[in-house]
Amino acid sequence: MHLPTVTALGGGHGLFASLTALRRVTDHLTAVVTVADDGGSSGRLRAEFNCLPPGDLRMALAALCGDDASGRLWADVLQSRFGGDGPLGGHAIGNLLIAGLWERLGDPVSGLDMVGKLLGARGRVLPMSRVPLEIVAEVIGLDPLQPDEFTEVRGQHKVAVTHGDVRTIRLEPTEPPATPESVAAIEESDWVVLGPGSWFTSVMPHLLVPELARAITRTSAKRILTLNLVSSSETQDYTAAQHLELLVEHAPEIRLDVVLADQQFVRDDRHLAAYAASLGAELVVADLAVRDGTARHDPLRLASIYAELMGV
Amino acid sequence: MHLPTVTALGGGHGLFASLTALRRVTDHLTAVVTVADDGGSSGRLRAEFNCLPPGDLRMALAALCGDDASGRLWADVLQSRFGGDGPLGGHAIGNLLIAGLWERLGDPVSGLDMVGKLLGARGRVLPMSRVPLEIVAEVIGLDPLQPDEFTEVRGQHKVAVTHGDVRTIRLEPTEPPATPESVAAIEESDWVVLGPGSWFTSVMPHLLVPELARAITRTSAKRILTLNLVSSSETQDYTAAQHLELLVEHAPEIRLDVVLADQQFVRDDRHLAAYAASLGAELVVADLAVRDGTARHDPLRLASIYAELMGV
Repeated sequence: MHLPTVTALGGGHGLFASLTALRRVTDHLTAVVTVADDGGSSGRLRAEFNCLPPGDLRMALAALCGDDASGRLWADVLQSRFGGDGPLGGHAIGNLLIAGLWERLGDPVSGLDMVGKLLGARGRVLPMSRVPLEIVAEVIGLDPLQPDEFTEVRGQHKVAVTHGDVRTIRLEPTEPPATPESVAAIEESDWVVLGPGSWFTSVMPHLLVPELARAITRTSAKRILTLNLVSSSETQDYTAAQHLELLVEHAPEIRLDVVLADQQFVRDDRHLAAYAASLGAELVVADLAVRDGTARHDPLRLASIYAELMGV
Repeated sequence: MHLPTVTALGGGHGLFASLTALRRVTDHLTAVVTVADDGGSSGRLRAEFNCLPPGDLRMALAALCGDDASGRLWADVLQSRFGGDGPLGGHAIGNLLIAGLWERLGDPVSGLDMVGKLLGARGRVLPMSRVPLEIVAEVIGLDPLQPDEFTEVRGQHKVAVTHGDVRTIRLEPTEPPATPESVAAIEESDWVVLGPGSWFTSVMPHLLVPELARAITRTSAKRILTLNLVSSSETQDYTAAQHLELLVEHAPEIRLDVVLADQQFVRDDRHLAAYAASLGAELVVADLAVRDGTARHDPLRLASIYAELMGV
């Protein structure tokens, strides 16, 4: 059977869910990961070494770990964290290993490929840029006395947890270079998958890297955008259709083939199908959530719909 | 050809030299490593997590890394250190990985076996005990006004660099349990190799672990003691024969089959052969040093004499 070549774009837990599903669909899988995180263990490493934040890359590698006992055990170890509040407390072991590989080898992609081999990873994990990035957001509603006033919020962590409404984001440095490996992966794919994930800090940053936005627009691959199950703190007042609008505001050229949404999130959103159609996309509504009531995609449901869409 | 089963005991750079030589002689190789280090990266990890000091274990694993590009690259990465003077500065990457594996897995031997597999190691590396140990030395000559006065010096690092003469050492806790895997390795070996290495802090500690001392005494393996090329700061005033005497003072039951010494160090030491003979050992004198004038064993010379002694 011909398995499709797929590139998944995102970061954090959203990308983890996406990869956990897609690994069941194909062996030809590349993840292109945001590099703007500045919180927690990644933020500390970034501050100490001015390196890329390794956390989202580590998580993506763990999602792709081999099916054998060794791959699963290494993934488990690399995902686990040192305890206590000493100098190493809170650091994920995999973050330290990845940062160490980068320091020694000098190139982030080679270091990630080595960890991929260690895990027996079923796919490749790439940073979207070799330059560590900062997300800067324009937010309204932070000042109760001036609810329409814009405030600049800097840094992925602060943007992700803001109580205001994020209206627009930009990256610093602006127009960062993409990793050529990521551009090539997108160009050579049969399918490109965007989302799910924190909308402003995991899904949209790729579209602000000009070479990636161009590759996504020009590739002959079909493009799937998978929406979140609910709004997050970044996007608390936005409907599903407004999520899509935000994307287009930041990347006016974008065309999509499929918009995949959970039935709960789009229940009353009549505007969504029309808006998707205006981008060239069919709206596919399905039951995607886990059964325990938390807002997480069920990897098997997601895998099943991806397989159907990709004709596997 | 039947290759001998060999267990090498020691720590630090001495054990690294020993393993680098022995891997050329046999594939059936086990290293039993001291766990008393309290300096540098190992000391910081020990202080933070009360774990075994990983440094000497890491170095032994690197000495046994696979011959292929992957084994050598991983060894190189694990041996390299973070730069700068931040929270991670100075830590060997391998030390962090090993400490992380220990935190996650809970057992030092399993963690080291995983790193051994990662490196494609040609042998097994074991800690001599699962309990972190402290070396306590009685030293004379530290006070110029009272040159015969004994001073207690605590901790491997301080003992290794003391300006006084170390007269005797003990371990705390006293009579620590040996790793059963180390006892079994010694019992099942054809050859047991002690030294070279820092005499008090790398070579002698094994003899202060009762189960290991007993195993070394009782094993049917032949025992080789390899002396250092010169005295170190620990043993600055001692002749080669006095090195041997120190060993016997701490382990009166010990019997040896071969005492291997470099020709430079034993030139005027007529007492040495007789003393070795009293322990059951033949004195073998050879040219073992590297040619650049530094006091390091040449791995090829050492390998060649081990191969000859072991009949390989």
